[in-house]
Amino acid sequence: MRYSVLGTNYVIRLDTGEKIVATLLALCERDRIGSGFFNGLGAVGAAELGHFDPATGGYSWTKLSGSYEIVSLYGNITVVDGRPFLHAHAALRDGEFNVRGGHLREAVVSVTCEVTLTRFKDDIGRKKDEATGLFLLDLKSGEG
Amino acid sequence: MRYSVLGTNYVIRLDTGEKIVATLLALCERDRIGSGFFNGLGAVGAAELGHFDPATGGYSWTKLSGSYEIVSLYGNITVVDGRPFLHAHAALRDGEFNVRGGHLREAVVSVTCEVTLTRFKDDIGRKKDEATGLFLLDLKSGEG
Amino acid sequence: MRYSVLGTNYVIRLDTGEKIVATLLALCERDRIGSGFFNGLGAVGAAELGHFDPATGGYSWTKLSGSYEIVSLYGNITVVDGRPFLHAHAALRDGEFNVRGGHLREAVVSVTCEVTLTRFKDDIGRKKDEATGLFLLDLKSGEG
Repeated sequence: MRYSVLGTNYVIRLDTGEKIVATLLALCERDRIGSGFFNGLGAVGAAELGHFDPATGGYSWTKLSGSYEIVSLYGNITVVDGRPFLHAHAALRDGEFNVRGGHLREAVVSVTCEVTLTRFKDDIGRKKDEATGLFLLDLKSGEG
Repeated sequence: MRYSVLGTNYVIRLDTGEKIVATLLALCERDRIGSGFFNGLGAVGAAELGHFDPATGGYSWTKLSGSYEIVSLYGNITVVDGRPFLHAHAALRDGEFNVRGGHLREAVVSVTCEVTLTRFKDDIGRKKDEATGLFLLDLKSGEG
Repeated sequence: MRYSVLGTNYVIRLDTGEKIVATLLALCERDRIGSGFFNGLGAVGAAELGHFDPATGGYSWTKLSGSYEIVSLYGNITVVDGRPFLHAHAALRDGEFNVRGGHLREAVVSVTCEVTLTRFKDDIGRKKDEATGLFLLDLKSGEG
């Protein structure tokens, strides 16, 4: 992984064999990025995507392998228990034009992956929601 | 809905049963956000997506219901007649891995929806285009 | 094409018949934008999408024509040989709800295309990677 910092923005390159989620988390930990968002593109050779089913309260996971173009990748960065936390969704496309999408658990770069990340100025946390078991954004202000 | 403001950026959480477009519009109205963009992820239980057909000059609409992962969500914010206006497109994925996408008229959050929004410094308007009947961006500068 | 500049952000409108990649490149050249990212939405009538196959080391290209909603569009801006370079991926949806996605070589606007672009403060270059023949991001700092 290589990156450049341009003010509050990062341009990041992930290389063949690198895990997108784990590598971005390591960067966030090193630079103490506690909130922000990122988008990315590139190609991956393996990925695991999830779909949350409110009826069962759990994720169903699908492992993909082959050659996938990252059609879209967006995620946010927060802090849980003092460590960076990534929540990302992605759409991936195989050689036959099938598009698979969902919650991105992890993906391994096949050729290259290019990410732009914007860092926000304050940390944003998450708190476990007892009803769903999910770590929801812990935001202080605003109401419905 | 809960949110935090971090400089010119917002981190927003929408909860079960909240409408994404209507709720973001209410936030823009309250904070007088007159231009900007946002991305989001999460899950919705119902949505209405449109496809504009230049041949007929109108949208065809499709209502979805079930359990959908927000694979991608991007939109911009402008002002029409003194009130905030949202234009968003989204890709949604059901439990069977089918991806549906298009112009997002509205979607109802099933579990959670997390949005990052960047506010620009000046308002951007829209103006009705007589040829299409659409409200196109009313931009003063630049030419082709 | 019309646009407004709001600090480091651009709001851009592309009109019927304009090529998205070529038009954005012309804007980047005129305003000397040497790094940044953009997202977009709208509708296109023709597009060419690519899928990179690591096995062959080349792209396979597919030409689309008809009426497509831009479900998602994300790209980054860099500089190669002193000129702006665009790398964008997109998901497009036809009237039958089929979603096509991949590396966007070019697309022609059918009705309108709305883009928000954030410019970074320093130029980012690319360098030819001998192994793949691709122009990868030339980033100085950071390691895996």
